[in-house]
Amino acid sequence: MNARLEKLMLWLKDQQIDAAFISSPDNVFYLTRFRCEPHERLLGLAVFQEKEPLLICPAMEADDAKNAGWDKEILGYSDTDNPWDLAEERIKARLPRIRSWAVEKDHLNVSRYEELSLRYEDADFVSADNILNELRLVKDEQEIKLIKKACELVDFAVEVGVNELAEGKTELDIIAAIEYEIKKKGAGMSFDPIVLAGANAASPHGIPGLTKIERGQLVLMDLGVIYEGYCSDITRTVAFGDITDEQKNIYETVLKAEEAAVKLTKPGVKARELDQTARNIIQDAGFGKYFTHRLGHGLGISVHEYPSITETNEMELEPGMIFTIEPGIYIPGVAGVRIEDDVLVTEEGVEVLTGYSKSLQIIE
Amino acid sequence: MNARLEKLMLWLKDQQIDAAFISSPDNVFYLTRFRCEPHERLLGLAVFQEKEPLLICPAMEADDAKNAGWDKEILGYSDTDNPWDLAEERIKARLPRIRSWAVEKDHLNVSRYEELSLRYEDADFVSADNILNELRLVKDEQEIKLIKKACELVDFAVEVGVNELAEGKTELDIIAAIEYEIKKKGAGMSFDPIVLAGANAASPHGIPGLTKIERGQLVLMDLGVIYEGYCSDITRTVAFGDITDEQKNIYETVLKAEEAAVKLTKPGVKARELDQTARNIIQDAGFGKYFTHRLGHGLGISVHEYPSITETNEMELEPGMIFTIEPGIYIPGVAGVRIEDDVLVTEEGVEVLTGYSKSLQIIE
Repeated sequence: MNARLEKLMLWLKDQQIDAAFISSPDNVFYLTRFRCEPHERLLGLAVFQEKEPLLICPAMEADDAKNAGWDKEILGYSDTDNPWDLAEERIKARLPRIRSWAVEKDHLNVSRYEELSLRYEDADFVSADNILNELRLVKDEQEIKLIKKACELVDFAVEVGVNELAEGKTELDIIAAIEYEIKKKGAGMSFDPIVLAGANAASPHGIPGLTKIERGQLVLMDLGVIYEGYCSDITRTVAFGDITDEQKNIYETVLKAEEAAVKLTKPGVKARELDQTARNIIQDAGFGKYFTHRLGHGLGISVHEYPSITETNEMELEPGMIFTIEPGIYIPGVAGVRIEDDVLVTEEGVEVLTGYSKSLQIIE
Repeated sequence: MNARLEKLMLWLKDQQIDAAFISSPDNVFYLTRFRCEPHERLLGLAVFQEKEPLLICPAMEADDAKNAGWDKEILGYSDTDNPWDLAEERIKARLPRIRSWAVEKDHLNVSRYEELSLRYEDADFVSADNILNELRLVKDEQEIKLIKKACELVDFAVEVGVNELAEGKTELDIIAAIEYEIKKKGAGMSFDPIVLAGANAASPHGIPGLTKIERGQLVLMDLGVIYEGYCSDITRTVAFGDITDEQKNIYETVLKAEEAAVKLTKPGVKARELDQTARNIIQDAGFGKYFTHRLGHGLGISVHEYPSITETNEMELEPGMIFTIEPGIYIPGVAGVRIEDDVLVTEEGVEVLTGYSKSLQIIE
């Protein structure tokens, strides 16, 4: 049994919950290392306190599960099977009666919940969401290795984007070039790349389009790469041609805030302290109301996961946590600047995983 | 009130259901023309038999909803609000008591279902999935226009891919070029593009990778574009250099099957008749066991929606339905060929929306 599954089984035992039904592709991947996008078909992992877990997936995916290293039972069903009937039988062989199920309430849909409820009429259904979020919070060595590789690739993505900047090119031109080069490396983007020029970058949810890059603009690039199931996420803002002192001041303020939060990162510090440190710097510079979001978010299998680095999160940092630090200042009609790194909490303090330079870069 | 919403309201009345809570971004878009990806935040559209519908979305999206043409009430909530409390109040102002809710059981997650169930303890919860699928089945003029544009763009995508084919290029190189050109047109792909060379194309779920294109191979490209919220989906298979008579025979068989199914398409014909017609041709040529999937699927806002063109679907075709026709032959270790068009059922018969040539193309 892998260590991740063992922890979930231990939790079931501690909580006196008979079984868990894991349904989200991300959590099935986390527990089995098998990545499956079943679309409308059923994917599930039944986990018990003591008995062998059961993976339920479309028959044509079963070989992939084995190849991914899953050496426990697989129930591969065809399109004419009723996977619930088949699963019920195999689950019954493990545990004749189930009085409590932990399910992913934030993921499982009502139709599937009703299938389970009908078959286990007198069972309680409790949430498995928190325990899974917590398990994924601290990354193991293998996960750290993959995220580091995703960060290397995203540094390269920024380089491609910066090299592509030229007068008359559109935001989408820059994105197309980035996606092209990342695809050629055999990787993919972990979310739709964001490249926003000038005032577009100040919109809280600007969508890249056919706006042309112009001299004197700050250009914001928020990019992520996914590598073997693990995500990176970086933002850099560069100047295209000469910019005003006001723009420089915004940039230097964000950079100062970002660096202060990175520097503070170490085990035992509270998540909120990072946010507050960065926020205070931005407030003291007079831009407080223009920093409109939390400081950062965890990342790993999902591009947004625990921990959430907010002004109020009392969670203490632990070695192995990986998250973003990404303060920003967005002045409507003027400019938006965000600087984002991915950081790993280490025993000693912090390791910054994204490496692209943060000094103000002026592209001539 | 737009015609789509009116139909849903009429259905509520007919079924004596007090209200519907629509939660999927695709169906909210269908009913409001407002496209929103709220991630973990709540998006909802409450619809009643008579009262004004209520759109619930993050506050920062509210302007977008108005700009998209939504002129009914919007409840925009902030991150510190409890959107359920606010919604309950506004819903109560419309209907003090709700005894039955229609919800998207295939979409709504258990956490949200529990929020609703707690607040409407004695309400029945019935499924809104089927009625929404049915409403979306027949496209209106505006939808047809957008899908036609998505089809034009996907024809261009195939052209880019075919022009890019060259010895030593990888499957991912071809995809990168396609995505680049589509992005530069201001559009996006409706699913991860598939380009598979030689035997890779015979795998039921081949994933494009670093396999190099070689002479003598059939190269399969399955591509989709999304344009203003509507999808296209095309497959073409071309020969790179000279191919064997066996490969040619496979190609011509698939083409014959595809053309026969297209030709048969008209109002009143049953979905299964299309599948059977194509399947019989492939069976008669001795490749029956290598055609391993249904003939096609509807497309529109989703790249897979109703109708499903299967061997057993008795549904009669109606003008305004749009779906794919995509027979294939996949011989493990040898080659995979699929030819896919998007077709619109018209009063007179059929209009083929994808236009890229289907004659066997041999790239020298």
